[in-house]
Amino acid sequence: MSVRQFINDPDDFVAEALRGLQLAHPALVRCNPDPAYVVRAEPTPKVALVSGGGSGHEPLHTGFVGAGMLDAAVPGAVFASPTAFQIRAAIGAADQGRGVLLIVKNYTGDVLNFTIAAELAREDGIEVEIVLVDDDLATESDDGPGRRGTAAVVAVEKICGAAAEQGAKLSELADLGRRVVGSARTLALALQSCTHPGQTRPSFDLAADEVEFGVGIHGEHGVGRRPFGPARELVTELTTPLVAELGLVRGEKVIALVNGLGSTHALELSVAHRELAELLEGLGIDLARSLVGPYVTALDMRGLSITLVRADDELLDLWDAPVRTPALTW
Amino acid sequence: MSVRQFINDPDDFVAEALRGLQLAHPALVRCNPDPAYVVRAEPTPKVALVSGGGSGHEPLHTGFVGAGMLDAAVPGAVFASPTAFQIRAAIGAADQGRGVLLIVKNYTGDVLNFTIAAELAREDGIEVEIVLVDDDLATESDDGPGRRGTAAVVAVEKICGAAAEQGAKLSELADLGRRVVGSARTLALALQSCTHPGQTRPSFDLAADEVEFGVGIHGEHGVGRRPFGPARELVTELTTPLVAELGLVRGEKVIALVNGLGSTHALELSVAHRELAELLEGLGIDLARSLVGPYVTALDMRGLSITLVRADDELLDLWDAPVRTPALTW
Repeated sequence: MSVRQFINDPDDFVAEALRGLQLAHPALVRCNPDPAYVVRAEPTPKVALVSGGGSGHEPLHTGFVGAGMLDAAVPGAVFASPTAFQIRAAIGAADQGRGVLLIVKNYTGDVLNFTIAAELAREDGIEVEIVLVDDDLATESDDGPGRRGTAAVVAVEKICGAAAEQGAKLSELADLGRRVVGSARTLALALQSCTHPGQTRPSFDLAADEVEFGVGIHGEHGVGRRPFGPARELVTELTTPLVAELGLVRGEKVIALVNGLGSTHALELSVAHRELAELLEGLGIDLARSLVGPYVTALDMRGLSITLVRADDELLDLWDAPVRTPALTW
Repeated sequence: MSVRQFINDPDDFVAEALRGLQLAHPALVRCNPDPAYVVRAEPTPKVALVSGGGSGHEPLHTGFVGAGMLDAAVPGAVFASPTAFQIRAAIGAADQGRGVLLIVKNYTGDVLNFTIAAELAREDGIEVEIVLVDDDLATESDDGPGRRGTAAVVAVEKICGAAAEQGAKLSELADLGRRVVGSARTLALALQSCTHPGQTRPSFDLAADEVEFGVGIHGEHGVGRRPFGPARELVTELTTPLVAELGLVRGEKVIALVNGLGSTHALELSVAHRELAELLEGLGIDLARSLVGPYVTALDMRGLSITLVRADDELLDLWDAPVRTPALTW
């Protein structure tokens, strides 16, 4: 069973997809082909939010450009950081003279290039702050590059996006973003790895009786193989460490993301969400809001991630605020 | 490479997923467990729209219950019609005393059960009309059950849903729905078939150099195998017969759905959408609106369908009207 994609030339894949996004959402976004970035069709006078990273995680980040969320997104090649030059151009396109917040997932290339772009923009007189998202509990360690950034970035973009729309200042948004990051952890597992565009085999193989636990969003190996089992058991294995790490106790509220990694069907995600809800109810933790769907994908990976964000009324109000982007609208 | 799902017991799959949907969207929908149906959390005094069919096509139909679209959805088991009893119960839950429009995809079981349910409801004094959706051009024939109903049902639900919200009467909605059906055709192809819940192999195998052309949304075989090729060629093979069948000519407007069948990545769908837009532009046909994403899935099938709907200003206004459901909001 070989894997194939709807693709022309792999080298044109991301650029052609950007054009397709633009054509589907002309009222919401404008896609600049070179350097590649996506900005809102109608800018708003406020602090600008810019994110980005390697492609292959769509709808992240390009699908989250619009009112109430990002002002610009910068897509790199598949699973590769955008260049500092691209990011600098997107900062310029998004900036409305009130400063720019960069929301960056913790990967070496992204951190490097966003930091350089921030420096370049500051030299040109643009005020820039960076919020680093590092929510992947599987990569917790005392040394090395730290935890990877994964699905919690959606919560950071949504919550900071709402606050920016309400007139928050750059420094306030940076503080808010860091508070969300500090309140959020994610764990993922895969039933099948992902296949790079133009390739015909997944990045790693799994036996029929095992899952990759703690998998990343680039087809990286996780922290180990575990036995395959019913959804109930797998969701429990993902959720229990998150609850422990965040120190969630009875009566606290959380926002949860049950995120499909690419090829996980809506029915499966709904079943997983039910299991999560039952588990949290048993612990007396209030599942205040949920987002269930493929929001941060790893190409066609068959798997899911669970993100918990400790929430209070302020965060819930910002979460509930209107948003209108290609991939998230309410 | 065996296929697995996030699932507990396959027999509980649909019921557990319904519960998960309810928990994710408590403000939008209420899921009745037995008989299984989904209704709006807040009914509106208007003609009620009810659809349904086998599960496995999510977000269709349960994800389209809400303001501006359906009033109720009735899910059967995976790829199996709901019972007439279930449908009758959903009609009763949705009815606001102004009549009920049933939107039914053309499959023998669905037609039978929705027709019986309509008769039962009429006996109880509820006015009911049925719109039959039969858009799948691959199943065009002079005898037999006629064309299958596939992704065009989303356009019927959206457009009739908007008109119902604006106060249209039952007979007007039935006429409108039939007009949309008559203006819409769909073709699909698969790069890999789908796997039933609890099974570990797709419903049919494809060689690496072939695609299943004209595939259905239940893992049925299509009308034949064709060579695999670049997205540009595959999209052309799907689109050219649609344009011919609808008799679309230069200057006409269309609404297009580029629909992922389950495991097709957002980047792939965007590339396919770009190809469709270029092809239509070359023909002088105005791609007035597009919906790009996994809206009518066939479990985890790797494939896509293209639907074209001939549109005029009335249909476009109804398409653009506000909608708020779990899976479609603008």
